[in-house]
Amino acid sequence: MTAKTLYLGGPEVFLPDAPEIGRRRLAACAAADFRGLFPFDVEAPGAPTPRETARAIFAANCAAMHEADAGLFNLSPFRGPHADPGTAFELGFMLALGKPVFAYSHRAGALVARLDGAAAADGVRRDASGCAIENFGLADNLMLCAGLEAQGRFVAVEEADPLRGAGGFLACLALARRHFDAA
Amino acid sequence: MTAKTLYLGGPEVFLPDAPEIGRRRLAACAAADFRGLFPFDVEAPGAPTPRETARAIFAANCAAMHEADAGLFNLSPFRGPHADPGTAFELGFMLALGKPVFAYSHRAGALVARLDGAAAADGVRRDASGCAIENFGLADNLMLCAGLEAQGRFVAVEEADPLRGAGGFLACLALARRHFDAA
Repeated sequence: MTAKTLYLGGPEVFLPDAPEIGRRRLAACAAADFRGLFPFDVEAPGAPTPRETARAIFAANCAAMHEADAGLFNLSPFRGPHADPGTAFELGFMLALGKPVFAYSHRAGALVARLDGAAAADGVRRDASGCAIENFGLADNLMLCAGLEAQGRFVAVEEADPLRGAGGFLACLALARRHFDAA
Repeated sequence: MTAKTLYLGGPEVFLPDAPEIGRRRLAACAAADFRGLFPFDVEAPGAPTPRETARAIFAANCAAMHEADAGLFNLSPFRGPHADPGTAFELGFMLALGKPVFAYSHRAGALVARLDGAAAADGVRRDASGCAIENFGLADNLMLCAGLEAQGRFVAVEEADPLRGAGGFLACLALARRHFDAA
């Protein structure tokens, strides 16, 4: 039987050492009898403008998500208190395709503990802009976490470096392995 | 013929005046012969714990996205330089379902102009953490913008209040109307 394919999404692709991180992730996938797809592989040959390059990468990533048997996503906070929106997009995309998805955050605390806020007159905890801070004990926005957590497919593990650490990634890889072994 | 249904996603649901904003959005939908679904309608009756409430809202929003004929999303920056990840999740979800999706940002500039960064040794513009800043002239992460922009379904309109302003919303509503009239 051929190895199942995992799409690996996360903002670590933006790091200067993304190729080395990707190689380590793909090696861990292979060791668990998976074939990993890490988006640094994506090239946009012959795209002469920045926008055409962006569209080619978008199309290639969508094709990779359609090809993959499952997805593994790094939802650690990125440039602020929330997950990278590109990764969130991909999580929603693969979930809508009905594929098994697994996600992790390398910040162990709940969103509500990460955001400055105070109880407003209506009793709701709100940030400085008046926006309600979701108070469900989840690591991020409920659309990202609630469904996965209910399935036991969300893992929060504290890592000093949320983009280079591998604790959550390896935990999700083990969950994915168990999922396909049980299928 | 019954009116087409639009799912309206965006972080304005977190505002204290979300019900009033939602009523205005639904009225604008009705004026354009659409039925709008604004998530403030979602209730989670009989959910005794915060996590069960979160799961009920997640399930209701997913059901609404399956029900809707198209989606309209507010990708304005939220709690930082990027779009709300819950909204990004929903955009990816509906796009994967093959439904027409339209999105707007109420910040007109490109992501690269919104982020502090400097050219690193490799010539790539990077933020303080070393992460590459996508430099495609797009309003946010390319997964959110590149595909929609290519279809003429992404609108950037400067609004003083990115969550309460309606410029991008109304522009997308007009695009959605044209889409269904032409279909």
